[in-house]
Amino acid sequence: MKQNDPIQAARTGKATFVIRNANVVNVFTKEILHTDVALYEDTIIGVGAGYTAPKEMDAHGAYLCPGFIDAHVHIESSMVTPDSFARVIMPHGTTTIIADPHEIANVAGVAGIRAIYKLSDDLQLRVLFMMPSCVPATPFEHSGATLLAEDMEQFMRKSRILGLGEVMDSVSTINGNKDMLDKLRLFDKRPIDGHAPLLSGLDLNAYRVAGPSTDHECSNYDEVLEKLRTGMKVLIRIGSAANGIDEILKKIVEDHLPTDNIMFCTDDKHIENIQREGHINCIARLAVQCGIDPVEAVRMASYNAARAYGLNMIGAIAPGYKAEMVLFKDLKDFEVVGVFNRFGKPFDDTPAHMPVLPPQVFNSVHIAPLDEHSFDLPVKAEMPVIGLIPGQLVTEKRIKRVRSENGLFLPGDGLNKLAVIERHHALGYIGLGIVEGMNITNGAIASTVAHDSHNLVVVGDNDRDMRIAAESLVDCGGGFCVVSQGIVLSRLPLPIAGIITDAPVAQVLEIQRALLDAAASLGAGGQSDPLVTLSFLALPVIPAIRLTDEGLFDAENFRFFE
Amino acid sequence: MKQNDPIQAARTGKATFVIRNANVVNVFTKEILHTDVALYEDTIIGVGAGYTAPKEMDAHGAYLCPGFIDAHVHIESSMVTPDSFARVIMPHGTTTIIADPHEIANVAGVAGIRAIYKLSDDLQLRVLFMMPSCVPATPFEHSGATLLAEDMEQFMRKSRILGLGEVMDSVSTINGNKDMLDKLRLFDKRPIDGHAPLLSGLDLNAYRVAGPSTDHECSNYDEVLEKLRTGMKVLIRIGSAANGIDEILKKIVEDHLPTDNIMFCTDDKHIENIQREGHINCIARLAVQCGIDPVEAVRMASYNAARAYGLNMIGAIAPGYKAEMVLFKDLKDFEVVGVFNRFGKPFDDTPAHMPVLPPQVFNSVHIAPLDEHSFDLPVKAEMPVIGLIPGQLVTEKRIKRVRSENGLFLPGDGLNKLAVIERHHALGYIGLGIVEGMNITNGAIASTVAHDSHNLVVVGDNDRDMRIAAESLVDCGGGFCVVSQGIVLSRLPLPIAGIITDAPVAQVLEIQRALLDAAASLGAGGQSDPLVTLSFLALPVIPAIRLTDEGLFDAENFRFFE
Repeated sequence: MKQNDPIQAARTGKATFVIRNANVVNVFTKEILHTDVALYEDTIIGVGAGYTAPKEMDAHGAYLCPGFIDAHVHIESSMVTPDSFARVIMPHGTTTIIADPHEIANVAGVAGIRAIYKLSDDLQLRVLFMMPSCVPATPFEHSGATLLAEDMEQFMRKSRILGLGEVMDSVSTINGNKDMLDKLRLFDKRPIDGHAPLLSGLDLNAYRVAGPSTDHECSNYDEVLEKLRTGMKVLIRIGSAANGIDEILKKIVEDHLPTDNIMFCTDDKHIENIQREGHINCIARLAVQCGIDPVEAVRMASYNAARAYGLNMIGAIAPGYKAEMVLFKDLKDFEVVGVFNRFGKPFDDTPAHMPVLPPQVFNSVHIAPLDEHSFDLPVKAEMPVIGLIPGQLVTEKRIKRVRSENGLFLPGDGLNKLAVIERHHALGYIGLGIVEGMNITNGAIASTVAHDSHNLVVVGDNDRDMRIAAESLVDCGGGFCVVSQGIVLSRLPLPIAGIITDAPVAQVLEIQRALLDAAASLGAGGQSDPLVTLSFLALPVIPAIRLTDEGLFDAENFRFFE
Repeated sequence: MKQNDPIQAARTGKATFVIRNANVVNVFTKEILHTDVALYEDTIIGVGAGYTAPKEMDAHGAYLCPGFIDAHVHIESSMVTPDSFARVIMPHGTTTIIADPHEIANVAGVAGIRAIYKLSDDLQLRVLFMMPSCVPATPFEHSGATLLAEDMEQFMRKSRILGLGEVMDSVSTINGNKDMLDKLRLFDKRPIDGHAPLLSGLDLNAYRVAGPSTDHECSNYDEVLEKLRTGMKVLIRIGSAANGIDEILKKIVEDHLPTDNIMFCTDDKHIENIQREGHINCIARLAVQCGIDPVEAVRMASYNAARAYGLNMIGAIAPGYKAEMVLFKDLKDFEVVGVFNRFGKPFDDTPAHMPVLPPQVFNSVHIAPLDEHSFDLPVKAEMPVIGLIPGQLVTEKRIKRVRSENGLFLPGDGLNKLAVIERHHALGYIGLGIVEGMNITNGAIASTVAHDSHNLVVVGDNDRDMRIAAESLVDCGGGFCVVSQGIVLSRLPLPIAGIITDAPVAQVLEIQRALLDAAASLGAGGQSDPLVTLSFLALPVIPAIRLTDEGLFDAENFRFFE
């Protein structure tokens, strides 16, 4: 398309496609105008009467909105490729995501970022990125890579890299850690995502001065208000859990708080949940239920995010904007009638061509050889134990009497053994610990999805099954598996960096169900998904007690146990 | 200042300066919070309690706002240097201007832009620029320079060049003129100012598709509404004239139109008027009088403009923002109590150091030699005449019987002779015409300020005085002068490009009064300022009849008279 083509189409009224009879939401004036919208290929050239086109459609009064934007999401958490993920979310009206490839960067560094960039290059979904700021997430574990400011410079001119991803390490930031300040300086003219749960007062102000300009971790209204006052953009997050968001939304209405700097994100949301309840449209629905004006909700779901991230070509239905749009039956349930993709065409569920990725991305699981003593865990009579709380990701430290043989821990009495095996560079690190509440008997469950360093985590009641489970994941390039009595009951290979598969979504969901059934057959499950629980047990930033490949970690005092 | 210094100051509460007891306008939440504001040098590090500093001030409850922003202004129209202009406007609370150096670019091209950039390099005022898009303004006259996209590339990395300046030539734009599209493409990721009075419907949409994203020419509410709907930012302009703006503001209130994309500008405002009524604060005052909420008015005067032009470090009082602020006695009259400049220090009227400019900027007036026949104007019995309308810039075409001698025009009966002399490259072009309503007897008035090409324009009732006036301006490098009976009665030299002087403001105003007195002694004046009238007589884009160095121009049909 030549630069002049859409201009002449706009001037003469000769469009390539016209949507007639739509209720068009104007995010600038907050009006709903019953009119036509004209496109020239992927570009909106006019809103109003006076356009003809060889193809047109009648919207029958449906509500035409700018395509919705997920302002912060980790694609890798879906375990499927960006294309598969796109085809899950687009039917719910999301046409742009701002993704932080933090997970794949922790495994494969710069090559991982390049891989996910390539995987999202030519999709119907607009996939934009923030450069992961905290790789590794903490100094208490071995990840696959380290990203410094100097590693990021090569990405500064990539058109789909918008800014710096969530700055989770607020302590380093406000203490002026040099590596962190170097990254913040590199991105100082661009959006910088924050991640600062409950940070307040002088510390919050120092964090803001350092650079982060958004936050998606607010858990109550006062936190929203304080952060907005500092000029932060607040991302209302409804991922797989949505604690307290409705209270926040109701209070926004009650206080007449301006919503210009409020937008929506999912962060992490399971594919099944997206399929069942929707994506960003599900947050818009809740917002309207809580009393937010429907047009305001549409703005929060589109325009506000576009503006916050400096995107001047999307987020509105107006001449010159890209024709990424969604038709809703109404602005209450936000049920989708139609979606226009990044090319201005109706969304189409055909898979995209899978690009060729560099081999190291497919060959990411490297552990030092295991033997029958690899999981030997010397214990005293009483030991600190990771206590699971049903339905929650936080754990609690419990001191338990444990069984032993020859001074080594013997699982049983509701206690399982947990191992975190360094799996990136075969360094030989294995952290060992005891977990209560996983309730596995006669088997083991293993995963290479283990936030944020994605080491190989395995839990079980006997060393043999644990070792078989770990080695089974090495064999398939990573993933999840359930082993019992020497047999692999179920396995989900995730060959891309050990965290993503290019298998179709339906197949992934089917294997996930098989994995859960297999885990249940060992006794694991109940209120919590044991796979999710397992994949968070190695994350040292969540209270209260975790295990990394370097040992048992006191996540409240930020140090290892003796 | 090191990157870490303000962060640590924010964290520890150890500021360099604290403003206590202010009513702080928060543009994000639209609140007014009675509290303290802490600075570290030029940066705001916190709003709230908990800060100490070696120096502090008590605001006594005055209203602390982000420094006001003039979103579109031509510094050259003030005829003084950026430093002098800064010291005129800053006492009225304006701390940032977005300037279009269109006038100096028409005279001196790239060198002119470099000169005004240098003249504004180190001021207390933040001076940002848009690259002039229409040099020359029209093909119907000779200007000093031509600016193509290729000439602009060298400026793309200059930190104070924000985008492309007002795209006045909407016809070329929507017709897809290649030179224009090249410029628009060069700036397609940046703000592009529009200038599209009364453009509407398909033409407006085509103009938007081409790129311009702001407009400061709206003269009625429907035009505002239509342009906002297209996603344009609307700049409410009150320069030296303010026709109909109060009606627009009242209707915005009545219609509950969102103001996020509305901001303020002056475009051109005489220094005397600024001194008398204020600058951007004068527009805020009118907005509040018209019913705009005072906090909304502050947002329009600061935050909205910052956001529209992608400025994320100014426009708000919050940690990390630059401490460019203004204290007002109230948010009704917007009387200024104090101003904090670009360095976070109280405004100080000391002149800045005058930088060295390249010699060609001081040596810009070059005309072919004049002789006693240069102004010979052959006429018929009846001639088209430029008819002045008192108090207006538009002219009307009048057909008049004229006196003549040997077939040449003889001034008299209320008719003067007008000449526009090409003055950039001594090409020898002289346009000649007849003007009614200037009312000069026994003399001539000349100017090298003649929008937009700034040729030498001279009007009088006899050729001798006209020639003396023109040559007097050549001698002093340009400016204004009034001549009677062979004697220069008064002269304002404007040695920088023939349109700006480095003389102090008070002296400029004094000479301007002397010029007006001298003009009045010839009979010129009355309802209109004859100097302003003269400087617009060569502008071919204003109806109905104009004179350029190439001849008498029919500004309604965009062609020369036969």
